Amino acid sequence: MILDSYRIATEPYYQPQGQEIATFLAAYHERLPIMLKGPTGCGKTRFIEHMAWRLGKPLITVAAHEDMTAADLAGRYLLEPSGTVWHDGPLTLAVRHGAICYLDEIVEARQDTTVVIHPLTDARRILPLDKHNEIVPAHSDFQLTISYNPGYQSAVKDLKESTKQRFIAIDFGYPPPATESAIVARESGADADLARLLVTIAERSRNLQGHGLDEGASTRMLIHTGRMVRAGLPLPVAVQSGIVLPITDNPDIRAALSDAIEACLP
Amino acid sequence: MILDSYRIATEPYYQPQGQEIATFLAAYHERLPIMLKGPTGCGKTRFIEHMAWRLGKPLITVAAHEDMTAADLAGRYLLEPSGTVWHDGPLTLAVRHGAICYLDEIVEARQDTTVVIHPLTDARRILPLDKHNEIVPAHSDFQLTISYNPGYQSAVKDLKESTKQRFIAIDFGYPPPATESAIVARESGADADLARLLVTIAERSRNLQGHGLDEGASTRMLIHTGRMVRAGLPLPVAVQSGIVLPITDNPDIRAALSDAIEACLP
Amino acid sequence: MILDSYRIATEPYYQPQGQEIATFLAAYHERLPIMLKGPTGCGKTRFIEHMAWRLGKPLITVAAHEDMTAADLAGRYLLEPSGTVWHDGPLTLAVRHGAICYLDEIVEARQDTTVVIHPLTDARRILPLDKHNEIVPAHSDFQLTISYNPGYQSAVKDLKESTKQRFIAIDFGYPPPATESAIVARESGADADLARLLVTIAERSRNLQGHGLDEGASTRMLIHTGRMVRAGLPLPVAVQSGIVLPITDNPDIRAALSDAIEACLP
Amino acid sequence: MILDSYRIATEPYYQPQGQEIATFLAAYHERLPIMLKGPTGCGKTRFIEHMAWRLGKPLITVAAHEDMTAADLAGRYLLEPSGTVWHDGPLTLAVRHGAICYLDEIVEARQDTTVVIHPLTDARRILPLDKHNEIVPAHSDFQLTISYNPGYQSAVKDLKESTKQRFIAIDFGYPPPATESAIVARESGADADLARLLVTIAERSRNLQGHGLDEGASTRMLIHTGRMVRAGLPLPVAVQSGIVLPITDNPDIRAALSDAIEACLP
Amino acid sequence: MILDSYRIATEPYYQPQGQEIATFLAAYHERLPIMLKGPTGCGKTRFIEHMAWRLGKPLITVAAHEDMTAADLAGRYLLEPSGTVWHDGPLTLAVRHGAICYLDEIVEARQDTTVVIHPLTDARRILPLDKHNEIVPAHSDFQLTISYNPGYQSAVKDLKESTKQRFIAIDFGYPPPATESAIVARESGADADLARLLVTIAERSRNLQGHGLDEGASTRMLIHTGRMVRAGLPLPVAVQSGIVLPITDNPDIRAALSDAIEACLP
Amino acid sequence: MILDSYRIATEPYYQPQGQEIATFLAAYHERLPIMLKGPTGCGKTRFIEHMAWRLGKPLITVAAHEDMTAADLAGRYLLEPSGTVWHDGPLTLAVRHGAICYLDEIVEARQDTTVVIHPLTDARRILPLDKHNEIVPAHSDFQLTISYNPGYQSAVKDLKESTKQRFIAIDFGYPPPATESAIVARESGADADLARLLVTIAERSRNLQGHGLDEGASTRMLIHTGRMVRAGLPLPVAVQSGIVLPITDNPDIRAALSDAIEACLP
Repeated sequence: MILDSYRIATEPYYQPQGQEIATFLAAYHERLPIMLKGPTGCGKTRFIEHMAWRLGKPLITVAAHEDMTAADLAGRYLLEPSGTVWHDGPLTLAVRHGAICYLDEIVEARQDTTVVIHPLTDARRILPLDKHNEIVPAHSDFQLTISYNPGYQSAVKDLKESTKQRFIAIDFGYPPPATESAIVARESGADADLARLLVTIAERSRNLQGHGLDEGASTRMLIHTGRMVRAGLPLPVAVQSGIVLPITDNPDIRAALSDAIEACLP
Repeated sequence: MILDSYRIATEPYYQPQGQEIATFLAAYHERLPIMLKGPTGCGKTRFIEHMAWRLGKPLITVAAHEDMTAADLAGRYLLEPSGTVWHDGPLTLAVRHGAICYLDEIVEARQDTTVVIHPLTDARRILPLDKHNEIVPAHSDFQLTISYNPGYQSAVKDLKESTKQRFIAIDFGYPPPATESAIVARESGADADLARLLVTIAERSRNLQGHGLDEGASTRMLIHTGRMVRAGLPLPVAVQSGIVLPITDNPDIRAALSDAIEACLP
Repeated sequence: MILDSYRIATEPYYQPQGQEIATFLAAYHERLPIMLKGPTGCGKTRFIEHMAWRLGKPLITVAAHEDMTAADLAGRYLLEPSGTVWHDGPLTLAVRHGAICYLDEIVEARQDTTVVIHPLTDARRILPLDKHNEIVPAHSDFQLTISYNPGYQSAVKDLKESTKQRFIAIDFGYPPPATESAIVARESGADADLARLLVTIAERSRNLQGHGLDEGASTRMLIHTGRMVRAGLPLPVAVQSGIVLPITDNPDIRAALSDAIEACLP
Repeated sequence: MILDSYRIATEPYYQPQGQEIATFLAAYHERLPIMLKGPTGCGKTRFIEHMAWRLGKPLITVAAHEDMTAADLAGRYLLEPSGTVWHDGPLTLAVRHGAICYLDEIVEARQDTTVVIHPLTDARRILPLDKHNEIVPAHSDFQLTISYNPGYQSAVKDLKESTKQRFIAIDFGYPPPATESAIVARESGADADLARLLVTIAERSRNLQGHGLDEGASTRMLIHTGRMVRAGLPLPVAVQSGIVLPITDNPDIRAALSDAIEACLP
Repeated sequence: MILDSYRIATEPYYQPQGQEIATFLAAYHERLPIMLKGPTGCGKTRFIEHMAWRLGKPLITVAAHEDMTAADLAGRYLLEPSGTVWHDGPLTLAVRHGAICYLDEIVEARQDTTVVIHPLTDARRILPLDKHNEIVPAHSDFQLTISYNPGYQSAVKDLKESTKQRFIAIDFGYPPPATESAIVARESGADADLARLLVTIAERSRNLQGHGLDEGASTRMLIHTGRMVRAGLPLPVAVQSGIVLPITDNPDIRAALSDAIEACLP
Repeated sequence: MILDSYRIATEPYYQPQGQEIATFLAAYHERLPIMLKGPTGCGKTRFIEHMAWRLGKPLITVAAHEDMTAADLAGRYLLEPSGTVWHDGPLTLAVRHGAICYLDEIVEARQDTTVVIHPLTDARRILPLDKHNEIVPAHSDFQLTISYNPGYQSAVKDLKESTKQRFIAIDFGYPPPATESAIVARESGADADLARLLVTIAERSRNLQGHGLDEGASTRMLIHTGRMVRAGLPLPVAVQSGIVLPITDNPDIRAALSDAIEACLP
């Protein structure tokens, strides 16, 4: 089938933190569009992969960006020997054949993207392809999920009210320490002690958030650092290259962060 | 017939609130263009669907956005084996074959869109296709309706006087509580008690409008929340994911809204 | 003949207000370009239609907008089986075959449009098609007329001196009450009393111009309102939907306008 | 010959005002590029037409504007049955076959236009067509002339020093009264009295320049007004439509200007 | 093989300064994306060339700039006799066939570039080619490295947190004097005395950084100057043309820099 | 050979002023990229032509401007009967076949131009044509020279440090009076007295630089003025049209400049 390459073969590991699975399942049951909210690297992408696997549906992911046009989502005409031929874009593929479509960081997109999804998110459940003079009714399996990092939003770049009010929202945050340690250990191959230590380091960095740091270290960074240690790098070098150096160039913040970390190291 | 896919087969549920149906029918009788004004999710789209069904006319809906060009409405040349061939855009389809054309959130569009509709909205009732050197006289069934959310307008983005003065305007607002409860119950499958409770919650949120919230919860959100409850989600989780989390990320507003809601919950 | 579809078959009703017809005829006799100045909906478009009918010349109307390019006026190459073929734009059509070309709201256009008309508006009377390496001498019947709403102009969007000084200007305003009543009665089918009443309402709204309203109600709005009444809508509902709601969303101005109107209603 | 349609058949009337003809002839003898400076409608275009006629050279005029690209001057590839074919733009035509190329209002153009002419205006006298991988040496008859209205220039839109310093400059202004009267009489068919009166009116308007008026009435406007009178319009109506209404919409300036004019009328 | 022209045949000279080689090897072992941070001309490009040679992998370098589009990285359709054909861009080449892809000065790129690399830098290791409806899984040899000059970043142009947190970072700075002298001697053919002298001069310029100079002289400049001396230019002339004149046009800074340098010259 | 039309047949006259020839030869010997710095019309273009002639290498000159794209330098696909065919741009021509490539006024270009030259200006000496999936190694004769007018640079438009530090710089200024007189005499055919007088006039204008004038009169202007005199124009008229009128429109500066000049005239 046309969407086979979008199916997820093996279960993506996901550690639940609250009501997010029940909420997603209820919204999916009602085919209501879903908005995943939360900071960088806290597991939103993993969650949607897990849910797609759990529901046995193909998943089409599109990373939104400010140069993305409606045609990048909906499709366009391409020139072939027999003339111009319509090619479905990733959103149309999902709508027509029944996939979960995941629009990552939707606020980055221009407003024409946002507007394209409106008729898919109300009772109509259709995708009008104006340039193709076609109205595609959504497949009964189609589901739309978007992600949204509230920390990024500004007055200039925000979803319009008429868009926001179409979505069921699920909040994500950093997991509690024990859960996060388990995730880091499992994903990086670090032992329990190292995983706990890395989570402690992350907490120190998160305390600096708003005091010079835009965001603290994500779960993803901890996993990277654990893998660097497993690959043989000394722990202090791994922590510098995996956590400290990537998140700030400010010498004072680097020093503060390094001091806070050093106090945790064995 | 070419517009068959744009016909509405079954009656869309619509609960009248005032003189809007009489006004629409009079304007349609005179083929005067109509502007639907009102906030997000209060039923403008449903109203136009209802009227199209009632009048037995096909409905072509175009969601305006700031990257939409005049060609997206009027049509363009496409390359085919025999050379370039003209393809009517959605507005031209409606003009030529006699549909109601609904331009949703017209202020989002660039001014060339607005200007394209001028000769359709005065005594001429024509659509000049400059690039096609054709003047399309409007079919006697053609009617133009636009929507407009006054809450969005700014000095930068507003209709020009010479556009505004061409339209008969109909104002929409949130329905009175009893009407809104009936709508929510019917559309979400919620029982009367839950529907009334959801409307009470919406009123609390609308009281916060202008005090941190850009807009209160729409009727659409209440219906979504009712459907989440029907799908088995506990009421407080449904209210959070369907109403509180989507409309604000500000922790203080979230707390105020949650408090106001909690006081209503059974 | 190629311009037949641009001929006006039946006399467009026009009620003269001053020297405008004599001025237009003198300028047309000299083939001097003409600029019609005046507010929204006061009859500029009707006047040019009337003059085209009176002179028995085809009329090609182009609504200018800020995304209009010089090619939209002059023409462009289109791809055909035998290669690219030149297609005249509406201005070139008028220049080559002898029509009156009416550029509506010229200030909306980008400067390349304005510059395109320069060699047509001095002794040369030519249209150089640079991309086609052709110089089109104007047909002896060709005449250029533009419209201009002085209320819109800002420092950013204004005609350049070198453009303005090429035109004979004709000023338009709202007609005197008796004339306007006659126009409204004739165009809307309203009886004399209703027409007079509508003109009185318009005068009230024009008094609010500059005090919260950008422009008062145009003659066009009065005609629309009269037609809504003829279609069976009660007068107060017709006045709201045809005059009050379209021109302002400000609740205070709406109230002031409604009060001023109510005092006139029978 | 390819440039025949650019030749000027009959002598364009030009009334010399100073050393401008000698300066132009000397610069043409040396093939130095020339810049004509002066206000709107004072005869720069007529002068270049006269000089082209006098020298017996074809004249290619291009009106610069801010959307003009280098390709609009130099040329571009067009799609033909045998593939893409290069078509010379107007500047390349002039360079290759030996015409005077007149770039009107050069400051309006984007900087790529200005840069395109640099290698034509120094010892190299070549036009590199980068996209065509061709270097066109200028024909020995080729001459470049540009016009420039100093009243328009702002900090944003001005020629670069490295462009200015390549040109011989000739200054133009309004002619002295007797000369201007002779021009107006000859060009409009007005008798000597009317011509003198129109020049007096122009002087009044020029006195208001900088006091509410951007520029006073040009010689062109006087000619237009004379022609309107010849076509039978009463003098006061002709003066209003030909001079007062086109140059200002400000009621106070209109009144001041009308008063100043009325004092001159017989 | 298709990437052969991207292989580095001879060992690029690189003088290690710290843990950078171990860190790179560990990150490469884990196929974690790498970010090289540091000032202009301190050896980042040489380092990645050295590592590619050391690992025996082809290296595809792309210099990012603000006009680079996602298609410049991912690929595009080109028109061929049989219709449009997809051509892989440099990033896709690297992903599909297993090269190290080095994106130089990534912050210069528009956000669509940044977003394109996201799915390559997490557990998915895929490159979705939306316009080609293809998901390219990364070859097991594929590795992504980006460079980043912290001195350039501003509030407007910076990597997003969600991008930064995906990378292992390696810091680069100017080498210690003895190391830098050795590099300069080896690369420029200068003798040890001249090399040491040039490094001393560089240190003087680096002391002026932040006091009128944006950046001090890079190692690259010292090598250039050494080569100019080797080519026979007198040392003071070489120092002026290779160091002083390129980095500043400010006469005061030039004088200060020249004075500081003169004190070192023999 | 393909570059023959880019060879300079006869020696371009150039009067050396310092170490510039030795510096250029040393940098060319090392194939280091060169940056010519200096004001308008002081001889940078003539110098590079002279050096190309002296070295017997073809010279490809590209005038940079802000609308120039990387494709204008590197090349692009053109549509031919057999499909799209790659055409080398001027920079690629120079790189592939061994010419000196002179990028005039490089700061005018967008950053993608600047970035395109980076891999040509370090040890790699390659030009990656991303869109053509080709890496062009520079011909051993290839040399890159850019020009740069420090007087133009602003915070917005300046070369990046990482670009500047890749170039050997050569400073140019106005020649000393005796040299400049010799140049003017030779290039304009003026006798020694006139040449000296023109240089004296230029010095007066250069004293006004920064006091109302952006730049003083260039050597080029003196040559133009000398040629106008030789063509028979009286000296004062030649000086006005060749020096005073082109560089300023400010009446006060014009008067000051004219006064300063008059004092020198015989």
